[in-house]
Amino acid sequence: MTDQQTRTGRDLGGLFVVLEGGDGAGKTTQSRLLDQWLTHQGISHLMTREPGASWLGQKIRELVLFPDAGQICPRAEALLYNADKAQHVDEVVIPALRQGKVVVCDRYIDSTIAYQGAGRVLDPDEVARLAGWATTGLVPDLTVLLDVDPCEGAGKIAAKDRLEAAGQEFHQRVRQHFIDLAQAHPQRYLVLNARDSREDIRDAIVTQVSALLAVGSE
Amino acid sequence: MTDQQTRTGRDLGGLFVVLEGGDGAGKTTQSRLLDQWLTHQGISHLMTREPGASWLGQKIRELVLFPDAGQICPRAEALLYNADKAQHVDEVVIPALRQGKVVVCDRYIDSTIAYQGAGRVLDPDEVARLAGWATTGLVPDLTVLLDVDPCEGAGKIAAKDRLEAAGQEFHQRVRQHFIDLAQAHPQRYLVLNARDSREDIRDAIVTQVSALLAVGSE
Repeated sequence: MTDQQTRTGRDLGGLFVVLEGGDGAGKTTQSRLLDQWLTHQGISHLMTREPGASWLGQKIRELVLFPDAGQICPRAEALLYNADKAQHVDEVVIPALRQGKVVVCDRYIDSTIAYQGAGRVLDPDEVARLAGWATTGLVPDLTVLLDVDPCEGAGKIAAKDRLEAAGQEFHQRVRQHFIDLAQAHPQRYLVLNARDSREDIRDAIVTQVSALLAVGSE
Repeated sequence: MTDQQTRTGRDLGGLFVVLEGGDGAGKTTQSRLLDQWLTHQGISHLMTREPGASWLGQKIRELVLFPDAGQICPRAEALLYNADKAQHVDEVVIPALRQGKVVVCDRYIDSTIAYQGAGRVLDPDEVARLAGWATTGLVPDLTVLLDVDPCEGAGKIAAKDRLEAAGQEFHQRVRQHFIDLAQAHPQRYLVLNARDSREDIRDAIVTQVSALLAVGSE
């Protein structure tokens, strides 16, 4: 599989914003606040998430998080997450972008790379190529990384599934991979300290999204 | 994703035999006859199939063949079939090969390439690379292709699922891709006319498997 040629939400007529970060970083809260701001501004938008936003994704999410009959090997797990991603992009994200909407997605390719590639035994570059193929090369116009120390982030919520149970070391590796991805493409990232106040974080996100929308409407 | 380095069943200490061909080619019958012969010879073996031989594969097979809530996009379908393949190889095939068994599999990568790559809208080379990655490069020592004219093969059985319903043209493309794959690696293939008698086909398969086992035990 060769590297997929990339395209952004803007290339399709919309704007594609992704929220990334470890568990407990506050992505859900910031998604809600951004949703409120977009609604207040009268901007046509769609809030979505990975995994599990399509009907197929729901089925896959149940399989991966709560396997009822045994372990899932790392490659199968990566392929399942990417099947979800392929369906989500094809069925949900791209149609909304083509309608000119701002699409805000809670987790996307970076989570796949960070959790599967870094956290498991797979080569992150191979996982990235797999995700690129699954999503037909669609990359965010803006990725907001809510960076948090895993000791603090993971402590906020109960250990509910396999990923939670994988331990501190796992979450430290995940965090580092998020940071590495952001540093590889700084122009497409906004890295924020998840310990800042929710209002400060919201304001920083809104400022950046506003700027992108202003450029897009020039 | 770069091309995966390949290894055969013999490299792992066993023998990996795959039966391929379109629907109605007689793979199930020949699997049964080969099973009987191996049992009669006292050769330790394992009969398996794709998709759906692992617990995860069963779940995936249900999803792909009987989607209950909508269409599955081509890339998601290819990724799901390859998740099944990854789990099957990791959980079932490789452990048996490492125990020195003859593993006989009804459908493998060629079916994925033929049905997904040729039959759908995906690039067969990309589908092949995806399958190579999913299976950690495991290729059969022998692939038996039961070649059949789709008009005859598909007519033998009722149209039970989506693949059956996709029509004659689809099955013609599938057949051609099977043949192309066999011609690309003739030393690993035994191509038989599925219209020959079941006894003639069985004898041809048994002769080839015997030869491979004889070489392996020298």
